[in-house]
Amino acid sequence: MRAGVISTPHGDIETPAFINVGTKATVKALTPEMVKSLGAQAVLANTYHLYLQPGNELVKKTGGLHKFMNWDGPMYTDSGGFQVFSLGSGGSKISGPTPNPSPKERGENIDSGRLNLEHQKGSTLSSPSLVKILEDGVEFRSHIDGSKHFFTPEKSMQIQHDLGADIIFAFDECTSPTASYEYQKEALDRTHRWALRSLAEHNRRSDLRQAGGPTSDCSPALFGIVQGGRYQDLREESAKQIASLDFDGFGIGGSFDKEDMGNAVRWENEILPENKPRHLLGIGAVEDIFLGIENGVDTFDCVSPTREARNGAMYTKHGRINLMNAQYREDLTPIESECLCYTCRNYTKAYLAHLFRAQELLVYTLASIHNLYFFVNLVKNIRRSILEETFFDYKERFLQAYQEA
Amino acid sequence: MRAGVISTPHGDIETPAFINVGTKATVKALTPEMVKSLGAQAVLANTYHLYLQPGNELVKKTGGLHKFMNWDGPMYTDSGGFQVFSLGSGGSKISGPTPNPSPKERGENIDSGRLNLEHQKGSTLSSPSLVKILEDGVEFRSHIDGSKHFFTPEKSMQIQHDLGADIIFAFDECTSPTASYEYQKEALDRTHRWALRSLAEHNRRSDLRQAGGPTSDCSPALFGIVQGGRYQDLREESAKQIASLDFDGFGIGGSFDKEDMGNAVRWENEILPENKPRHLLGIGAVEDIFLGIENGVDTFDCVSPTREARNGAMYTKHGRINLMNAQYREDLTPIESECLCYTCRNYTKAYLAHLFRAQELLVYTLASIHNLYFFVNLVKNIRRSILEETFFDYKERFLQAYQEA
Repeated sequence: MRAGVISTPHGDIETPAFINVGTKATVKALTPEMVKSLGAQAVLANTYHLYLQPGNELVKKTGGLHKFMNWDGPMYTDSGGFQVFSLGSGGSKISGPTPNPSPKERGENIDSGRLNLEHQKGSTLSSPSLVKILEDGVEFRSHIDGSKHFFTPEKSMQIQHDLGADIIFAFDECTSPTASYEYQKEALDRTHRWALRSLAEHNRRSDLRQAGGPTSDCSPALFGIVQGGRYQDLREESAKQIASLDFDGFGIGGSFDKEDMGNAVRWENEILPENKPRHLLGIGAVEDIFLGIENGVDTFDCVSPTREARNGAMYTKHGRINLMNAQYREDLTPIESECLCYTCRNYTKAYLAHLFRAQELLVYTLASIHNLYFFVNLVKNIRRSILEETFFDYKERFLQAYQEA
Repeated sequence: MRAGVISTPHGDIETPAFINVGTKATVKALTPEMVKSLGAQAVLANTYHLYLQPGNELVKKTGGLHKFMNWDGPMYTDSGGFQVFSLGSGGSKISGPTPNPSPKERGENIDSGRLNLEHQKGSTLSSPSLVKILEDGVEFRSHIDGSKHFFTPEKSMQIQHDLGADIIFAFDECTSPTASYEYQKEALDRTHRWALRSLAEHNRRSDLRQAGGPTSDCSPALFGIVQGGRYQDLREESAKQIASLDFDGFGIGGSFDKEDMGNAVRWENEILPENKPRHLLGIGAVEDIFLGIENGVDTFDCVSPTREARNGAMYTKHGRINLMNAQYREDLTPIESECLCYTCRNYTKAYLAHLFRAQELLVYTLASIHNLYFFVNLVKNIRRSILEETFFDYKERFLQAYQEA
């Protein structure tokens, strides 16, 4: 495990750090000022979603994502790969528009860079009939209107350069953990060829920017993505290949079973160069964060804090509680008495439970603030424990209390 | 017209003022800090809604509305009368719970103290078969679960004292403007008897509080409500009767046709004592605000700024625009270039249009901030024009530009 600093044109990120997901150029239900004041250092937006709506060209025209969404801190975009495979079948088995898409069909449940396998039941990873994978790239359908699109590594670079984040990712194929060894190997080789093409296109575009002279904006940093499923030799092969290329950092991808994740991360991080940052894509369970950091991960992103918040599930140091439970209806204490977030400093569970029952919009804001604060500060505390060399004590104490509930 | 100051235990309100509606103990989609920073001076919550959910006893237990919802400024509650008549038939013609109530059935479209008639199509004002009006009070059904309830003037006072606002209203009957003269007269006489009972119960409860000694909290101010439909003699009779009682201020009630409102307000304000504040219930059209102030109104409340905002309709000095229109999709300017609200200082129409299309929660916050800022500041500017004796100039210039669109 390690503590460090990632420097970007929009500021530093002290690591380990939890990166807030802002799928469609907004951290759901929060103003950028709220995101900042809960302690968040960076935001990760989704390439697939923004390409479809409102379109990368429009975002570029407005001056890039930072200006578009009014976030002046460090920003990531993902490669679009994961969503293409999970959402890119047009939302359901139809080829035309879906008149009344369900929340899942609208992509609301799968809006992060990656997701833990347990959240993917019903996704189309295992039925990719409408997603066509070719050597050149991937053909998919919009989950919004069923229209057909084609992503290549070059296209992903173009979109991400248009969006203008500080840290972007190479285009990859995110395989199902149930895929066979043979398929994982085939996909991995393709992902490596796509990594080379992503890097070449990124360098070409960065050179063009620099040629634009001092008025041109900064080029983003490009992270390569390591894949390989649950197989040690594939994970190691992937890490070696990606590490040998001139990437600025690395993303660790894949849909993980709980057990696989720690291993995959360890195998890879023993190979990846120490002086470059490592981002674990789409992971956000409390135990997994400890596990990732213990095995050398620097940053994480995950939609679960805000998604859970909108369902009334609040993280506390004793585990999750659901504010819709009858017992909180008249509870005059905050979600957590010692919590210093805006929500806990100002509101009781009874008030939040009332707002949830009344479906009042404000509660999605208040609940999201608490859950994001929980994760951002958990990782900050872990950072402190690393610097103070008390990580294992902290981990043990934290997980003991957390699992008690 | 006049400019003044209303002093409450939670601060002063400079009048004329636009009071923000916070139906269910929240100004929809906004934190109290946002409400304050857009310049709002006070919030009006709804007695009927809070009685049903989460219940006035719970609010009392938490220390009252101010503490419950984290608003430390001046606060009003209405009498519950209007909602009992408009929502109190159980949401529809059923007597049991509604499993999937429509937004209208949930009361989302009728959540203010009063509404302009043009918003009331389909309301139950003209089909009160499930609302029983008796001399003692009104029997109605919850729009949430169809359960039966009975409001009396005493009950309204009890609920409002429990909620603990600074300014509360006497229980009244809000008649339909299509009601006959005979019915208006009958209802008015009943409202006057209810005013006496409201006042007696309010005084009894206030005396009990004072007897509680210096540790007891402040008693609210009680406003009597003037009714009388479109009839000059009834409006004048009502104003005389209510003015003769020891109320701290007055509410002007009724469902108005555009034309009726100016007259009703003028007739009444010529009779109501000059030294007490006058609140025009549920009125919020730009023209009506000028008309009300011109005829002696001090304060207004209306849900339309936030409700319109959630539908994408934004107020500008040239009239309303709808952000869902295709022309704004790539519009890189704010809603109004000269507007100083948080939303206009930080976001383009293109961004807001994107969020509306993506149904992102943040947009309901950003749009509501702009619309409330528009109204709060319109009334502030009117106040300034009164002090500078340029009201009629300001009105003419404003309405000329506003109607051009």
